[in-house]
Amino acid sequence: MALQVAEMLSTYPKDLGDIDQSRLATCIEECLRCAQACTACADACLSEDMVAELTKCIRTDLDCADICGTTARVLSRHTGYDANLTRAVLEACAQACKACGDECERHSKQHEHCAVCAQACRDCERACRELISTLG
Amino acid sequence: MALQVAEMLSTYPKDLGDIDQSRLATCIEECLRCAQACTACADACLSEDMVAELTKCIRTDLDCADICGTTARVLSRHTGYDANLTRAVLEACAQACKACGDECERHSKQHEHCAVCAQACRDCERACRELISTLG
Amino acid sequence: MALQVAEMLSTYPKDLGDIDQSRLATCIEECLRCAQACTACADACLSEDMVAELTKCIRTDLDCADICGTTARVLSRHTGYDANLTRAVLEACAQACKACGDECERHSKQHEHCAVCAQACRDCERACRELISTLG
Amino acid sequence: MALQVAEMLSTYPKDLGDIDQSRLATCIEECLRCAQACTACADACLSEDMVAELTKCIRTDLDCADICGTTARVLSRHTGYDANLTRAVLEACAQACKACGDECERHSKQHEHCAVCAQACRDCERACRELISTLG
Repeated sequence: MALQVAEMLSTYPKDLGDIDQSRLATCIEECLRCAQACTACADACLSEDMVAELTKCIRTDLDCADICGTTARVLSRHTGYDANLTRAVLEACAQACKACGDECERHSKQHEHCAVCAQACRDCERACRELISTLG
Repeated sequence: MALQVAEMLSTYPKDLGDIDQSRLATCIEECLRCAQACTACADACLSEDMVAELTKCIRTDLDCADICGTTARVLSRHTGYDANLTRAVLEACAQACKACGDECERHSKQHEHCAVCAQACRDCERACRELISTLG
Repeated sequence: MALQVAEMLSTYPKDLGDIDQSRLATCIEECLRCAQACTACADACLSEDMVAELTKCIRTDLDCADICGTTARVLSRHTGYDANLTRAVLEACAQACKACGDECERHSKQHEHCAVCAQACRDCERACRELISTLG
Repeated sequence: MALQVAEMLSTYPKDLGDIDQSRLATCIEECLRCAQACTACADACLSEDMVAELTKCIRTDLDCADICGTTARVLSRHTGYDANLTRAVLEACAQACKACGDECERHSKQHEHCAVCAQACRDCERACRELISTLG
């Protein structure tokens, strides 16, 4: 099942301004994907026998899930657009994805959920940075 | 881009119990899809010239987005699974999707964002009810 | 520092209907209090040496934080009020608080954060049930 | 009713590091207060007859509520603390509070909910900036 982010974007009744719509849609999708992966990874870590070695990973997962979820919401709004706020939120999101991607990568050989989650974090970090680079 | 909900499910290190994994993955995906559609629909409504006639729609969109987002998170956790809580959350989610689908449908001829959002709500409501029907 | 929930309620420009405003304000406050306590308790559990024995507690904390946060938002909206949705959300919230209060109570002798969190869950569960009892 | 943020902080089982605990507790409380005020203000704006003139205010309210809520959660976690992520989130939160405070202030003479919300935004922005100034 695909998300329908681009379809919803196309129904917006006013001018979307000069934001790159393709990168915007990709970034929203990557944020949702990463948020879900991080929520599931935190829970999978909780069920590992070696949970005591994964507590920092769980914490970065939880932060990253919260920040990606909020970023997806902010990016889904266009009314009264504020480029400075968008940039600050994307910077925080890229930072959260970097921290979580690095931490999950450390466990990716042992735990498949960390490997999948690390990739989602890398993809989301890149999408955030690519969108930032297009902001005026 | 597809979500990777089923892939994350398959990496869970313990037994997932007797929950229907295919319906579970579908329900998580529909919740995320519906949450994004509702967030975008609320914002699109805000930018319509006739926003004054869409205030109830915006409110149901906001509630539905919050509840679907929370439902996706609860369903993404399996550690210490509690069927009663899962059921109560799914019931609230189905109710929110019903209310929002009904309200968006009333505006779907005039506003394409309401039409797309109404369909997302219907799909998510069905996914919640189908998952409820499989709970022990 | 006190929240200003009742103050915000009093500024609502339309009729709030026949909902019990005092119980409504209390319930919103208890939801916010419980959500914060659960988020902090989950994190404190993660830092305990015996984290492996607290994984179910962490999971119920995370669910309860999400559901209480969403409930506080739904209850803070009055436009286009829907008693059925309000009731379903309150039922899910009371259930989450019950589950989390029970689980935290099991650890409350050993862990002060679980004791404080269990009390917040009990208070929030009661506030939800008292508000439900006043709904038409 | 007061939140119990400082009480939960005092139960954290490990060293909280050199973060200023009093400013941290204040900042978490201001974030929760501001998130609730913004959610209620957006809804009150929706019920104003002149809602068409308040659409930008509603949007900044929704963004600010999401970002303050996420910031309160990130600040409530101490396990695996990351000063860079904390700073990025606080910067985004201060920016959201500034934008929302400015927008609400423009309507504060006409709408009491905007006046109360503008003050909550100012208080939260200050708390974020004061906490940033103490980060190493």
